[in-house]
Amino acid sequence: MVSTAEALEIIRRGADEILLEESLIKKLERGKPLKIKAGFDPTAPDLHLGHTVLINKLRQFQELGHEVLFLIGDFTAMIGDPTGKSATRPPLTREEILENAKTYEHQVFKILDAEKTTVLFNSSWMGGMSAAEMIQLAAKHTVARMLERDDFSKRYKGGQSISVHEFLYPLVQGYDSVAMGADVELGGTDQKFNLLVGRQLQEAYGQEPQVALTMPILEGLDGVQKMSKSLNNYIGITDKPDEMFGKLMSISDELMWRYFELLSFRSMSEIKKMRTDVDTGLNPRDVKFLLCREIVARFHSSAEAEAANESFVARFRRGAIPDDIPEVVFECGAEGMPVANLLKAVGLVGSTSEALRMISQGAVKINGEKVEDKGLVCVPGSSEIYQVGKRRFARVSLARK
Amino acid sequence: MVSTAEALEIIRRGADEILLEESLIKKLERGKPLKIKAGFDPTAPDLHLGHTVLINKLRQFQELGHEVLFLIGDFTAMIGDPTGKSATRPPLTREEILENAKTYEHQVFKILDAEKTTVLFNSSWMGGMSAAEMIQLAAKHTVARMLERDDFSKRYKGGQSISVHEFLYPLVQGYDSVAMGADVELGGTDQKFNLLVGRQLQEAYGQEPQVALTMPILEGLDGVQKMSKSLNNYIGITDKPDEMFGKLMSISDELMWRYFELLSFRSMSEIKKMRTDVDTGLNPRDVKFLLCREIVARFHSSAEAEAANESFVARFRRGAIPDDIPEVVFECGAEGMPVANLLKAVGLVGSTSEALRMISQGAVKINGEKVEDKGLVCVPGSSEIYQVGKRRFARVSLARK
Repeated sequence: MVSTAEALEIIRRGADEILLEESLIKKLERGKPLKIKAGFDPTAPDLHLGHTVLINKLRQFQELGHEVLFLIGDFTAMIGDPTGKSATRPPLTREEILENAKTYEHQVFKILDAEKTTVLFNSSWMGGMSAAEMIQLAAKHTVARMLERDDFSKRYKGGQSISVHEFLYPLVQGYDSVAMGADVELGGTDQKFNLLVGRQLQEAYGQEPQVALTMPILEGLDGVQKMSKSLNNYIGITDKPDEMFGKLMSISDELMWRYFELLSFRSMSEIKKMRTDVDTGLNPRDVKFLLCREIVARFHSSAEAEAANESFVARFRRGAIPDDIPEVVFECGAEGMPVANLLKAVGLVGSTSEALRMISQGAVKINGEKVEDKGLVCVPGSSEIYQVGKRRFARVSLARK
Repeated sequence: MVSTAEALEIIRRGADEILLEESLIKKLERGKPLKIKAGFDPTAPDLHLGHTVLINKLRQFQELGHEVLFLIGDFTAMIGDPTGKSATRPPLTREEILENAKTYEHQVFKILDAEKTTVLFNSSWMGGMSAAEMIQLAAKHTVARMLERDDFSKRYKGGQSISVHEFLYPLVQGYDSVAMGADVELGGTDQKFNLLVGRQLQEAYGQEPQVALTMPILEGLDGVQKMSKSLNNYIGITDKPDEMFGKLMSISDELMWRYFELLSFRSMSEIKKMRTDVDTGLNPRDVKFLLCREIVARFHSSAEAEAANESFVARFRRGAIPDDIPEVVFECGAEGMPVANLLKAVGLVGSTSEALRMISQGAVKINGEKVEDKGLVCVPGSSEIYQVGKRRFARVSLARK
């Protein structure tokens, strides 16, 4: 068993806020396993590294001896969009939910210890709740406090419609904490309001309020915007080893340290030592290899991670890319940017006609691979090494405006 | 069967608003019995004349051949005040509700035809509603529209707390219309918002929307504030014949015409004729006797009405009160006003000491009865004939400030 101070240091790692830390200390000092709640939406079980930030934190709690309650919010998913306005959120059937839950487990148990994880469905208690009980639940919160929530407040002031049932969803999520007797609830920073509703409802139902722990939203490969599929700046946890390795190698050195803190299982003291080594001369590329191998090994295997590393090195040796190349972040629209324009914009060529000529001569490469298509469009969210001739290099992260 | 135009005239009588009149016409022209809904709160089954304004309108619909659905809102009454803040609204048990319903029926069937009245309890459909269905119901209305309701808007702007469940109650009431398939819903003017929620929900559930018909709130005996028990300006429908008769005789002549319109079963043409008669010389007191006898006979019997009339006349003959005495409306606090101060305030005496001297001499009478107690306090809501000596008279309606 580690001391409360040591546990606290591990829990604090990368966390955005802990509300309230003193009540977390009180709970930890009892020396009993705590119930750690995290809720997941069963509509999108295809995880990327951004989602794993939270799951890694759950793993840390597991390693500290606590019980992880992995909550699948199937109750509202089975309702779908009750306004009928959104065709993109059809109600899920029980079969679809169970199938999605299996996919979740398959992905999540690459990080969590299945033995120490309890998977729960909130339909177990919400499905049997009556309208009268829902009214009693709704009586425990005020309209004014709901309208304080960031997104509600903006929409109300902006004249955008909020349906009354949207006020009930945070209450359902909060009531889950009551039904589960959660000691700690984890969520993204955007979940802070809902986590606090949980605290408040537990008090209203006579329970000790949970600790709300928020984790930051992970930046995508561009290092600017949050990792998301729609921004195409993500690494899916089912991405193939080579793809995963290459994408991770493309991130900036600064972002690498962020990823180490939020995604690596190495201790912070080990990470700090690497940082000192880099500051005193170690090639950051060697450290990045460690991160890439760790992540690929987690979702595939050590052997595949080694192979991906080797193939990456072989490809770049052919291109003879120097270690020390300038990093550029550039913004473009969702439709992307033609490669010739991008090369001019980042200063690798003097004009787009020069760029086109160089492409014709086979003198333009992306990640060591010759560009054949003059009309190639570079998509936002990507982060690649662009090369013109033998000496002009830049690592360009293309973010969406 | 009467024509649509005739029916409309009867329905319009005394009504505040009919929304929308064109859809009422459409419904009437089908020539089929309509379902007329009115909801009642089972917590307060002790009716006064103010409550009967609505019930009289239901009776008119019955006489026109329509079906009255007398809805007892027991679902929310069984929940009570879910915030637990109000000790005055404990949840009612099923037994209490059934008992209250019996009391209602006993009182209401003095006006309505029991054969043509269906008594319903909204717990029949709301009791079986699940939390998920409540969420779907709540999705049919927006927060902004709820906050447009007068009382919510005032409380929100005034920083007074509104519990989230209060947004669900108008939806429950509106859903009742869906469950009942109501064609018309009646309510007081203060119910307009809720009646319109019913219209809107019926549309959302694919039904033809109901017509919302609001009736005005009846003024109390003082002719100023609404009739209510707490203001003590009411006539309970279980008041004894003499009390009922005397209270009704105390109202002003102007208020009498209002009561005729809203409380009498006489036709409007008959009432208009009486008004013309009074304008051309008939003593309004004779007409008032007719109103008093009609109302007392309704809640007691014709014989008791006649007896009350006779005893009233005898009492006033002794006091020799002239027919034509000034009417004064005076405001005072909830605690009332000592009789001596009141006599001075309305100009019947020059000073309170004169008033006290006159009381000592037995020269002050209220409704023909000598005042014995110098410390008598006149309560707000009362309307009485005050007399000092042989010639000084005033009918004073005391309203609460």
